[in-house]
Amino acid sequence: MERIYLDYNATTPLSKEVFDFYVKELGEYANGSSLHEDGRKVAASIEKARKQVAHLINVDPKGVIFTSGGSESNNTVLNTMPEYAKKAGRSVIVTTAIEHPCVLEASRRLANNFGMEVIYLPVDEYGTVDMEAYKAALEKKPLLVSIMTANNEIGTIQDVKTLCAMAHQAGALFHTDAVQAVGKIPVDLKDWDVDYATISGHKIYGPKGIGALYIKPGSPIEPLIRGGHQEHGLRAGTYNGPAIAAFGYAAELAEEGLPEYEKHTRALRNRLRDGLLSAIPGIKINGHETNVLPNTLDVSFPGAEGEAILLHLDLLGVSASTGSACASASLDPSHVLMATGLGPELAHGSIRFSFGKYSKAEDVDYIVEKFPPVIEQLRKMSTVSYTHN
Amino acid sequence: MERIYLDYNATTPLSKEVFDFYVKELGEYANGSSLHEDGRKVAASIEKARKQVAHLINVDPKGVIFTSGGSESNNTVLNTMPEYAKKAGRSVIVTTAIEHPCVLEASRRLANNFGMEVIYLPVDEYGTVDMEAYKAALEKKPLLVSIMTANNEIGTIQDVKTLCAMAHQAGALFHTDAVQAVGKIPVDLKDWDVDYATISGHKIYGPKGIGALYIKPGSPIEPLIRGGHQEHGLRAGTYNGPAIAAFGYAAELAEEGLPEYEKHTRALRNRLRDGLLSAIPGIKINGHETNVLPNTLDVSFPGAEGEAILLHLDLLGVSASTGSACASASLDPSHVLMATGLGPELAHGSIRFSFGKYSKAEDVDYIVEKFPPVIEQLRKMSTVSYTHN
Repeated sequence: MERIYLDYNATTPLSKEVFDFYVKELGEYANGSSLHEDGRKVAASIEKARKQVAHLINVDPKGVIFTSGGSESNNTVLNTMPEYAKKAGRSVIVTTAIEHPCVLEASRRLANNFGMEVIYLPVDEYGTVDMEAYKAALEKKPLLVSIMTANNEIGTIQDVKTLCAMAHQAGALFHTDAVQAVGKIPVDLKDWDVDYATISGHKIYGPKGIGALYIKPGSPIEPLIRGGHQEHGLRAGTYNGPAIAAFGYAAELAEEGLPEYEKHTRALRNRLRDGLLSAIPGIKINGHETNVLPNTLDVSFPGAEGEAILLHLDLLGVSASTGSACASASLDPSHVLMATGLGPELAHGSIRFSFGKYSKAEDVDYIVEKFPPVIEQLRKMSTVSYTHN
Repeated sequence: MERIYLDYNATTPLSKEVFDFYVKELGEYANGSSLHEDGRKVAASIEKARKQVAHLINVDPKGVIFTSGGSESNNTVLNTMPEYAKKAGRSVIVTTAIEHPCVLEASRRLANNFGMEVIYLPVDEYGTVDMEAYKAALEKKPLLVSIMTANNEIGTIQDVKTLCAMAHQAGALFHTDAVQAVGKIPVDLKDWDVDYATISGHKIYGPKGIGALYIKPGSPIEPLIRGGHQEHGLRAGTYNGPAIAAFGYAAELAEEGLPEYEKHTRALRNRLRDGLLSAIPGIKINGHETNVLPNTLDVSFPGAEGEAILLHLDLLGVSASTGSACASASLDPSHVLMATGLGPELAHGSIRFSFGKYSKAEDVDYIVEKFPPVIEQLRKMSTVSYTHN
């Protein structure tokens, strides 16, 4: 039996179209900085891709630089702050308790090694940023606010436009990690007016090892990787020409396919949600009910343990996740679920199903059929007694 | 006519074997940190590649971490130093005047933003590090010495084993940028005993966007890109599984093919050198005569201008370079050639031909036939009068 992949938030496959295009581009091997014809051809593909990526997020291509991925883009923004803090006379960073580990770790470094103050905003039970806490944080005149557009685990979408306007009102720069949002919901960075945004290739059916950072013209930025003149000196390193070109094409397809993608994944997500709710008593759907990524369903199964559930799903041929792949080696409960107020037991017993363009209704029906007995069995075996009301 | 690519030091194509393997691996798309079967398969390919890369440079695989390429690896080592300086009570960095721009720029940042002292060692006319200057620099008790194994422009090879032993004697850490050496000459890092080494995939017929950093167990390192637990917390970001696997395979092939590679490229390099020396009066071969990469030939054509030569070569269907691709947008003369004592005129009139496994004797013969009249014509047109003796 073919395996069922429901871990699209961890990474997507290359779409069939991007795969074919990428393989062709892998033959265009020259260095995009070289002055000869081979190099100029690669440089032209890179500039085409920059326009495609910029169009997807509705920004000026001049503000887009290519990086090795989302983690690098996020680190670049955060690492800019110590050097900029002196000029700006501000040294507070505001972020949230549910950011991706790369934003949290980069922030922790600013606190530990550079003496900056970092405020981690709390979220409500649906994962929405607490506005009272945000207002209070803005009174501390932060240098930068970094809030993700949509959460990778529970899919909750923030009101970035409002959050950004409030940051600007307080004189702060605004960054959004839009890695999980782009290609899943409309992302209009010009309208939102953010200073920085992070996006990634391998979440939109493009290659791994390639991402982008949008920097609004005029907003301060310090290169993380220094050296050659590439990307106006903002990101050194030989251009990964084939991956950039394929990322550009993936961005174009993501833009074209967005309405169909939203409809397709939302139908499957809701089908699984309803199927599980009918078949398994006492489960809890995490994340916001409406402000949520159409493809993401995070479910707590009280009385069962996440790793054990995952193992059984794996044996059934289903690939899902207990949370973020980037945190999956850790045995700690999800920091995102804990921030929404779930106790450790519920947080430990949670599974993220994330759908994609190749997911099918029959995959959902297979899970709804095979999965409830697994949970029942695990609950019987569980050392924690479980009673639902 | 098929173009003649003699810019292998800027970047190599994927070898035919690696291309086929890479295309197959691109179908293995899961996140290497995921716990399900799809993810575990990718994790296994990554560990296989780590062994292949480690074997090529003769180190313990435990010391190898994957990065997005040479520039990132070099920046990671240099950026570790400000935080380590406090613990070590040392703050001098020693490097050379002929390093790759990413080492030079990262060093400049240590000086400008962190108040560290950076010593740029001079080299002799062949590009070999000046030993008297090195001894004097070591008396300043440096924190780190960073010296490239082989130069990207002129191909000169340094005696890394001796340089490293001297650094250790002085209590300093030692890093070598081995990007241009690996796959071209034997690189035995265990024997040389370096603390850090940088290597890159796209210089050994592997993919772009992937490289490695070797860190000797126990040597201090600070992650440049923070976040997930990948690479023992030393390099966050979703694993670029397919590129890592292909890089590993390229490393294995580079190791197997080394004797043949050296023989093949050296013969072509010397054939071009001898052909040009016979056909064009007054030219100068740059770099060391024997301690030189077998594939690299850097030639000064006094009385002609590099960009113009390159343009004419391009029209003849030949891709070569005026120096480093990473510095090619700059109109400054090569910092490497200037450091060997060439005046601006000679440095401006230089071309790097770099050979590779797909280069052919007939490519050389074509250049030796077509190229001399070009130089003659350029010399006639030159505003700088040229007389050779």
